Amino acid sequence: MNKPSLYTCLSPALLNLYDVNNSIVVVIDILRATSTIATALYNGAKAVIPVDSVEKCIRLGKNMECITAGERDGRVAEGLQYGNSSFEYPRNFIAGKILILTTTNGTRLLHMALTKGATEIITGSFLNISAVCGHLISMKKNVILACAGWKDKANIEDSLFAGAVVANVKTHFEISCDASHIAECLYRQAKDDLYEFMKTNNASHYHRLTGFGLEKDIRHCLTENLANVLPYYVDERLVVREF
Amino acid sequence: MNKPSLYTCLSPALLNLYDVNNSIVVVIDILRATSTIATALYNGAKAVIPVDSVEKCIRLGKNMECITAGERDGRVAEGLQYGNSSFEYPRNFIAGKILILTTTNGTRLLHMALTKGATEIITGSFLNISAVCGHLISMKKNVILACAGWKDKANIEDSLFAGAVVANVKTHFEISCDASHIAECLYRQAKDDLYEFMKTNNASHYHRLTGFGLEKDIRHCLTENLANVLPYYVDERLVVREF
Repeated sequence: MNKPSLYTCLSPALLNLYDVNNSIVVVIDILRATSTIATALYNGAKAVIPVDSVEKCIRLGKNMECITAGERDGRVAEGLQYGNSSFEYPRNFIAGKILILTTTNGTRLLHMALTKGATEIITGSFLNISAVCGHLISMKKNVILACAGWKDKANIEDSLFAGAVVANVKTHFEISCDASHIAECLYRQAKDDLYEFMKTNNASHYHRLTGFGLEKDIRHCLTENLANVLPYYVDERLVVREF
Repeated sequence: MNKPSLYTCLSPALLNLYDVNNSIVVVIDILRATSTIATALYNGAKAVIPVDSVEKCIRLGKNMECITAGERDGRVAEGLQYGNSSFEYPRNFIAGKILILTTTNGTRLLHMALTKGATEIITGSFLNISAVCGHLISMKKNVILACAGWKDKANIEDSLFAGAVVANVKTHFEISCDASHIAECLYRQAKDDLYEFMKTNNASHYHRLTGFGLEKDIRHCLTENLANVLPYYVDERLVVREF
């Protein structure tokens, strides 16, 4: 039997080059949307509703009993209650609640994948990498690893995660995609210490976030399986998919 | 004094994200447009005229005493005389002549850079890497390393060349660009044997061209400084820039 295909899309601006409506799309925004989504769901949030504008976030927040959160350019957006750090969503705060989240790059990409008719949308981060890889292997469907990047440019941390997934699942897929090989090569060189790799390679997001005092956040977001659930998009929200 | 900036653009579809009209653009299409351009000029061609369509190539060829050449999807395009291999342009054939060239990705990217008002356009390949790096260092201007890729997707060989340039010139530039760091990291891992790296990492172009029996072409295009001239775009043609 032919293996399903796997592609890595390094920027949202390239998503139209891929056969989205015949694929599972893994939305990747390591710093920090998809890390925060995994954490909130792992800690018992009923759902995360990703929205593409601060205004919509505020409006939905008024209609529902929930937390409104999000950032623009790496900081809490004006008018919202919380930001985009996993540490803001411990179990004793978020369990049983709904989180409405808007971020600069990640939620926008998710809505792009939705508009283009993705077969299924899940979110990936190092915090839930095993759940993501296990799911992709079990589904036996075509996959697009979709990196959110930064304002349509490729970034190191999302590419690293795509590379980590490629390294884990590659024997199960047909990979005729240079971007996947580039990402895996990057991951191979970085995997012994992802944080140090980000630092020594001058990752632009490393500088942006450490400028805000967020070293601890970065280290957390680069750690595997601390929130190993599978966020799955259904009925306009991300919920935990049970196996 | 502030250093000029250097960016790597991994796909023509991302070129609009960069400040093209304030930069030197290095057009990169290793397999094989920019390698062929360097070779033809090194071997004494008077000029290479890059055009974006086969029709235009044929039409110009009728008006001028020159060679019409080009490929579509890796093969000689119908109606043209020659293809896109360096080996077709030895000195005893090309010296003193004008080559009109159209290729799938490289010439299209050059025209995009032109339309967006690049300060200067040069072409880069491993065959003329020292000339390119020396020029970039001496100019002290902002630089965009523009990869032609394959049908708007990133590819390994163009990214490798961008990474090689970054490795060579980085102390002279401010590089706040993850794509440049990704490319350099790729090059670091590949540099001991670029051909073997292409092969073991399943570069899609490696497969495409070896399918046409072009292993020798690939090896040639990955060799440094065999045609060390600086192709420079002026008056709708590429000519050798003398220092």
